[in-house]
Amino acid sequence: MGSTERIRNVAKRVAKWARAGHQMVVVPSAMSGETNRLLGLAKDLAPSRASSAYHRELDMLAATGEQASSALLAIALQAEGMESVSYAGWQVPIRTDSAYTKARIESIDDQRVRSDLAAGKVVIVTGFQGIDEHGHITTLGRGGSDTSAVAVAAAMKASECLIYTDVDGVYTTDPRVVPEARRLHTVSFEEMLEMASLGSKVLQIRSVEFAGKYKVPLRVLSSFTPWDIDIEEEARSGTLITFEEDEKMEQAVVSGIAFNRDEAKISVLGVPDKPGIAYQILGAVADANIEVDVIIQNLSKDGKTDFSFTVNRNDFARTVDLLKEKVVPALGAQEVVGDAKICKVSIVGIGMRSHVGVAARMFRVLSEEGINIQMISTSEIKTSVVIDEKYVELAVRTLHKAFELDQPAAAAA
Amino acid sequence: MGSTERIRNVAKRVAKWARAGHQMVVVPSAMSGETNRLLGLAKDLAPSRASSAYHRELDMLAATGEQASSALLAIALQAEGMESVSYAGWQVPIRTDSAYTKARIESIDDQRVRSDLAAGKVVIVTGFQGIDEHGHITTLGRGGSDTSAVAVAAAMKASECLIYTDVDGVYTTDPRVVPEARRLHTVSFEEMLEMASLGSKVLQIRSVEFAGKYKVPLRVLSSFTPWDIDIEEEARSGTLITFEEDEKMEQAVVSGIAFNRDEAKISVLGVPDKPGIAYQILGAVADANIEVDVIIQNLSKDGKTDFSFTVNRNDFARTVDLLKEKVVPALGAQEVVGDAKICKVSIVGIGMRSHVGVAARMFRVLSEEGINIQMISTSEIKTSVVIDEKYVELAVRTLHKAFELDQPAAAAA
Repeated sequence: MGSTERIRNVAKRVAKWARAGHQMVVVPSAMSGETNRLLGLAKDLAPSRASSAYHRELDMLAATGEQASSALLAIALQAEGMESVSYAGWQVPIRTDSAYTKARIESIDDQRVRSDLAAGKVVIVTGFQGIDEHGHITTLGRGGSDTSAVAVAAAMKASECLIYTDVDGVYTTDPRVVPEARRLHTVSFEEMLEMASLGSKVLQIRSVEFAGKYKVPLRVLSSFTPWDIDIEEEARSGTLITFEEDEKMEQAVVSGIAFNRDEAKISVLGVPDKPGIAYQILGAVADANIEVDVIIQNLSKDGKTDFSFTVNRNDFARTVDLLKEKVVPALGAQEVVGDAKICKVSIVGIGMRSHVGVAARMFRVLSEEGINIQMISTSEIKTSVVIDEKYVELAVRTLHKAFELDQPAAAAA
Repeated sequence: MGSTERIRNVAKRVAKWARAGHQMVVVPSAMSGETNRLLGLAKDLAPSRASSAYHRELDMLAATGEQASSALLAIALQAEGMESVSYAGWQVPIRTDSAYTKARIESIDDQRVRSDLAAGKVVIVTGFQGIDEHGHITTLGRGGSDTSAVAVAAAMKASECLIYTDVDGVYTTDPRVVPEARRLHTVSFEEMLEMASLGSKVLQIRSVEFAGKYKVPLRVLSSFTPWDIDIEEEARSGTLITFEEDEKMEQAVVSGIAFNRDEAKISVLGVPDKPGIAYQILGAVADANIEVDVIIQNLSKDGKTDFSFTVNRNDFARTVDLLKEKVVPALGAQEVVGDAKICKVSIVGIGMRSHVGVAARMFRVLSEEGINIQMISTSEIKTSVVIDEKYVELAVRTLHKAFELDQPAAAAA
């Protein structure tokens, strides 16, 4: 939420839903820029601390942002003539573990909220925060407000959890790359998970996982839609993330094209092919807290093999150094080569499960454009390829067209 | 507390005290301007609401200011190498009644704070706020942080409660009026109460009352003193408000001259002198929520009397209208006259109890300067007069000199 003007608009929108007969629980984020302002003050005072005591205080500090915006929203709703009350996470309570700055929700007590709803109030619950078993305030970290909203919706057994974001839904691909990209009316939970993990920044993957675990129907819609649009229209807007497969009668084979430019490829060449090499290479990487995505081990030839994987670009140089210093000598491998100018492109679709040849079609389309595939990784509902970064727009556009994602009939629910 | 620079200085000062072997509990106010900023946002959203639900949300909102500054102070202390933890009022807990925006502290649980102190930590407790029996956040209203500090000091049975303010102590009178005014090293609780109620804005009267109730030795000292001055010097600085009368061996007869320009005088003339007139006049005023200070009923003459009292200047016009419309006709009084250009000047001193003739000396000094006394009000340790506003500086200067308050020996403890 931004200025008081935006808070007022949120209040009008919530009041509209409540007046239409819905019991409403609202989970606001902090006002725009507030969390960064607060954490900036902390950083100014203690530039580089990492103790648990420090993280505890960061959570005390950051939690005030959502408490303030929640109280302001309750006030704005009261000014709209709605009865409303706000609760901090500890008041609900939303119980979490004690991992300050990245806590996980353990349980939510729905009694207090339920009794206020029954009394006709709109209930505001602070996002992003909870309380641990010792009574300390915790925050959930990045994307915490979305996760809180989903968790509260799960606890309340809500009929739908509406997530108002700065985009108006989930698209077949990034509209900045493919202007013909279409908004999906529905997308399955599994597809959303794959898209979220592939850099489609609509929702934090954590909130999607949470929704999946508790089967909370999630609707992603735009906070920029005027508050006074017809409620039926708003209820159909955005993208619904569903868990009911049979809802999608006309299943598209591929629902979207995702891509991720944040990765880098690293290959360890000439590794003696013996048991345990994957563990020796990736174990060292994992010990350094570096996350690995795509992993490929080539066929062995003359007792040697090549081993490739991708990491986040921020970890690229560190990973290469680590391998050169420790792993290559220990393994007796030949050398380490890396390439930060790559991109991962994926086709995602729950329909791929029952349609053969989808991956083959992807590879054919890319080869017809002269795009060399460097790595391949597949799952039940996704096929990813790693290609030269300079081909990313071409690959995404071509695949979007080849799988007819620009055609309304194909992707509509 | 102002900027992070000021927070850092507070941390250094607290660390100095802690390193000298003191167990420290710190009760910070919000950062400078923060409470006004937050309440301004609320006012912007709901210009004129007065419901309990609204006040509840104001407290949720305002409480974030102290929570943030407390967490920041804990972080700054950690950066100084001190172990530190901050607690919001509800975490201590500080129990209050449910009077949102002006709650009263009912009890403080000292267990949590005590165990952290025993573990060698500096404990930060948010000022200004608590929790009611239903788990709602409450705030204490104006001067709440001082009151919180005194209450925590009482609960912890602290040896002294240091209140850092923007003045360096309590003075014999306002130094802007009398440059010779001297800082008092000690002042009795009763004197401080009289001075606080008379417009000496050093401490909110509420926190002084609280200190008196629980006999918490309070020291008022300046937050502008460099944090690194010698600790023994700092421990003697400011003004100590004491409860031990025998501490003051060389008791000054008069400790200070207070004055208040915020009042206005109202007289109801020609009131038939019969039982119940005070109630009929002041009852109507009290019903309109107007506070009355000095009250004088003149001697009756020919079955009629005049009745005078003072109110805050902001209530002057409203009180006169009220009396003219309702009280004068009902009482059969003659008329209502008022004067907003008055000032109340008081001499305050616990020594007045055992010294006769102090009031008489005050009256003589004023008459020698040709200052007419319009009203007189006395208590055990205070004599107040109402005079024409234009004489206030002359009266204060003359009394300050007459009672030798400019002489070091007279007022030192």
